[in-house]
Amino acid sequence: MKFYKDTSYIFALGGLGEVGKNMYCVMHNDEIIIIDAGVIFPGSELMGIDYVIQDYTFLKENESKIKGLFITHGHEDHIGAIPFLLSEVNIPAIYAPNQAAALIKKKLEDRSIKYNNLFVYNEKNVYKFKEVSVEFYRTTHSIPDSHGVVVHTPNGTVVTTGDFKFDLTPIGPIADLHKIARLGSKGVTLLLSDSTNALNEGVSNSESKVDDALDELFTRHDSRIIIATFASNIYRLKHIVDTCKRHGRKIAVFGRSMENNIEISIEGGYIKHKELFVTPDEANKLPSNKICILCTGTQGEPLAALSRLANGTHKHIKLRSDDIVVFSSSAIPGNALSISRTINRLYLKGITVYTNTSLSDIHASGHGNEEELKWMIRLINPKYFMPFHGEYRMLKKHADIAVSCDVPRENTFVLGNGDVLSMKNGVIKKAGYVQAGDNYVDGNRIGEVSSAVMRDRKIMANDGIVVVIVNMDLKENKLLTTPNIITRGFVLVNDNIELLKKLENIAKDSINNKIKTGVNYTEIKFDIIKNLSDYISLHTGRKPIILPVIMDVKKGVKN
Amino acid sequence: MKFYKDTSYIFALGGLGEVGKNMYCVMHNDEIIIIDAGVIFPGSELMGIDYVIQDYTFLKENESKIKGLFITHGHEDHIGAIPFLLSEVNIPAIYAPNQAAALIKKKLEDRSIKYNNLFVYNEKNVYKFKEVSVEFYRTTHSIPDSHGVVVHTPNGTVVTTGDFKFDLTPIGPIADLHKIARLGSKGVTLLLSDSTNALNEGVSNSESKVDDALDELFTRHDSRIIIATFASNIYRLKHIVDTCKRHGRKIAVFGRSMENNIEISIEGGYIKHKELFVTPDEANKLPSNKICILCTGTQGEPLAALSRLANGTHKHIKLRSDDIVVFSSSAIPGNALSISRTINRLYLKGITVYTNTSLSDIHASGHGNEEELKWMIRLINPKYFMPFHGEYRMLKKHADIAVSCDVPRENTFVLGNGDVLSMKNGVIKKAGYVQAGDNYVDGNRIGEVSSAVMRDRKIMANDGIVVVIVNMDLKENKLLTTPNIITRGFVLVNDNIELLKKLENIAKDSINNKIKTGVNYTEIKFDIIKNLSDYISLHTGRKPIILPVIMDVKKGVKN
Repeated sequence: MKFYKDTSYIFALGGLGEVGKNMYCVMHNDEIIIIDAGVIFPGSELMGIDYVIQDYTFLKENESKIKGLFITHGHEDHIGAIPFLLSEVNIPAIYAPNQAAALIKKKLEDRSIKYNNLFVYNEKNVYKFKEVSVEFYRTTHSIPDSHGVVVHTPNGTVVTTGDFKFDLTPIGPIADLHKIARLGSKGVTLLLSDSTNALNEGVSNSESKVDDALDELFTRHDSRIIIATFASNIYRLKHIVDTCKRHGRKIAVFGRSMENNIEISIEGGYIKHKELFVTPDEANKLPSNKICILCTGTQGEPLAALSRLANGTHKHIKLRSDDIVVFSSSAIPGNALSISRTINRLYLKGITVYTNTSLSDIHASGHGNEEELKWMIRLINPKYFMPFHGEYRMLKKHADIAVSCDVPRENTFVLGNGDVLSMKNGVIKKAGYVQAGDNYVDGNRIGEVSSAVMRDRKIMANDGIVVVIVNMDLKENKLLTTPNIITRGFVLVNDNIELLKKLENIAKDSINNKIKTGVNYTEIKFDIIKNLSDYISLHTGRKPIILPVIMDVKKGVKN
Repeated sequence: MKFYKDTSYIFALGGLGEVGKNMYCVMHNDEIIIIDAGVIFPGSELMGIDYVIQDYTFLKENESKIKGLFITHGHEDHIGAIPFLLSEVNIPAIYAPNQAAALIKKKLEDRSIKYNNLFVYNEKNVYKFKEVSVEFYRTTHSIPDSHGVVVHTPNGTVVTTGDFKFDLTPIGPIADLHKIARLGSKGVTLLLSDSTNALNEGVSNSESKVDDALDELFTRHDSRIIIATFASNIYRLKHIVDTCKRHGRKIAVFGRSMENNIEISIEGGYIKHKELFVTPDEANKLPSNKICILCTGTQGEPLAALSRLANGTHKHIKLRSDDIVVFSSSAIPGNALSISRTINRLYLKGITVYTNTSLSDIHASGHGNEEELKWMIRLINPKYFMPFHGEYRMLKKHADIAVSCDVPRENTFVLGNGDVLSMKNGVIKKAGYVQAGDNYVDGNRIGEVSSAVMRDRKIMANDGIVVVIVNMDLKENKLLTTPNIITRGFVLVNDNIELLKKLENIAKDSINNKIKTGVNYTEIKFDIIKNLSDYISLHTGRKPIILPVIMDVKKGVKN
């Protein structure tokens, strides 16, 4: 699309139609402000993929305009893509609040990435570029140092919220309600606001209530207490540590992400009482009422600490029937089955289990419900509204909420990644598209995994793979031996020798027929795939991936 | 108590420990600002009393200092005492917002009180006196034109809320969140905030939801719809009128307070569609789906329109089994019995009844719940906090809420009427007391009804009165005839001639014994009361009031 001089543009490269992979951009002439660079942890339908990240084509093409990446807070869906972004795009500076900066630093160190332009900002800083300036306001979320980012352009002010709730009795500092109101008083053209909990009515639970509920649990029980919670919820971890301190319990931590977060939070001063943490061996020697086990696995993830405890396969700790297991968490949609599997295993051991359905105050979301979203809209009082950070139905509902708060319907924008808004003299319109999409990260490699690969992995997960190895003398157009068939996840070889023999012969015939009519490797491969697929489908009802590999005795693999 | 020069003082003459009778004062040197002058409608334990109002002793003694009475909104518990206040104290000016001013004007006219200093303020006005100034901020409540009043003194700023809720999707204008935040940013020494719904968790219902619920009811039913609601809830009345307009129904109104409020609201432009209102006769001639009856009596008050409809004693309208009765209201504590009596009578007629327990969105309170109270505290961010407008348990809970929002416990003041706070250079302390208390209004007379009278009325209500009429020649110290006994509400005379004869003789003996030992009327009366009380109590188990009246044949009654 064409970008006009002196017009400002706003778009998302990730975060619309999904919870995760956040990346929002404000562009004015030759200045681009990027807000957040997060990942999505793929669900089970993306086999073998570690992360999904943004498509950086637009940023690569406009690299020279980028002024900086501004981070709202230190959760993976806002910082996780930074290593991948840095490896593809020159980012002149990253500005992050304290806790996020510590997490980014560790992340880059772990991957041996050298980057010298990571700066810590605080809520009072203002960064002035040529025509655009950036400032911040303190919000409340489940991790310390969460901020909203404000971008002032010559065409109007864009306020983004990052992740937020309005907790009026928070554990950490309260959101800067007065600065938010001040921004609103001065006039805001566009608000981009967190839609995660737009479908939930009323107000979210306060972290103080969770604190009270935990304290009551610790008072009531003398047993060992095992608490599973989100490793990213630093305030919850802080509660639990403080509660252990008050009740004279030591803490053993299981789960790498949780260990990391606790370590960084202790370094940053967000979590105190370092002396309470003990090793698994020490934990096993303490009496029941002197120990609390903190672990990952709230979503029933098969390899997480809690699942291994429930299965009895944890190498350090064996659960006992008088243990108490607390899920200080909520179910992420889609995980109900794996969670209930874990809970059932715990019940089978006779263990008492508390979840946020049996004890509602044992968890509080970090995202605001409908009434809190209304407060943000009313205080910012924007002329235009664009819901972000959410699936489509959340964005849609959030737009409805804005309309109920007097934002004209035609001034709300429910968009997808890549949709571009233009802003000129305080008037905002839909203006076009930039390239946006999913990039898959497999290990540390970006983009080598295409969606075709993902499709293959899905197929293999269902029906396996049939590899056809063809030895040819390509110069002579001669098949040297009968093709070899190797399968994985298809059929048991020993029970199906005849089938495999037959497949080898089909492959041989396909090749020989082709050789007669003139060599074309692509066509040879196509024929192998077609003929084998038809036969397999007919005789087994399966549709495995057919992968012909043609080898030249002289030159190697021909692809 | 002693008031020091250049110190400011804050106290309530009504409204603490009770819902109603609101009157708050801020005094600095020779300037007194009065906020509101309301009544309480007494419960059934105060027989024959029309209103309870404030004790005006302090204001009378400091009349010359009064700068003005500032009215927050037009509800009776905030303006009802104005006629009585004006008859006792010289008030140089009353400042009220538009709708309240109209209601006050009507109230004064009805009582033929001439008062030329009633001024209408709006949210932008600032009234500057010598050292004290007063400004306002728009709030949301169940009546239009509700405001909080802010008093600036040389020692600090005092913010009062009036009655409020935070309805982010209101029917009328939204509260001025930005001005509230601005006040908080500038620094507030003391916040006095509405405690009515401090015991209710979460947030209050929005009036928009009531609107939706009413609309759905009107869509679903073709029957006559009878709606009982609070006459003072102007926004609700506006909803109902607008809903009738949309659904093509005319409206008949029953209940004087409701007729008055609708009339004034139509004059003020708050309620439109004057043409929809019809007389009872016209109402009876319209088909069921063309009429809506609006009436008082949500609390089951025996003489209110709805009770008479339920009893079948209404002179204009007879209910039918296909009618729909809607209570767009909530039960005021203590009225559950009378309400359920009314509902039962309606059920007996086969009528469908909707209440806020069967259909939760049919009512919304005008007062904020816990989370809304927190918002006010967080936005105003006061150094000191004093809950007002509520019973003691509400005030207490509201103070706890303030503490949860970081107001130090020692900076919260749960006070009673007459308790005085001093404010000097931003430091507030308890400083003493001024006279405060209940004054009863019986008809239009103030203060003639003491609490002793009230006690008497209670006794009479239970056990009646025994009047002993004694004819004496006081000069001669001679009883002229056997005393005469007249009773009311005590026993049936014809069935108890012997008892009454016996009482006359006891009285006679009491007097004759006294006369022997030297005349003292007080002692004679005392003896009559004591001897008769003892006898009556022993023989009937009752404790009526004994009222001796000694008459001198020559000089008249001796009291």
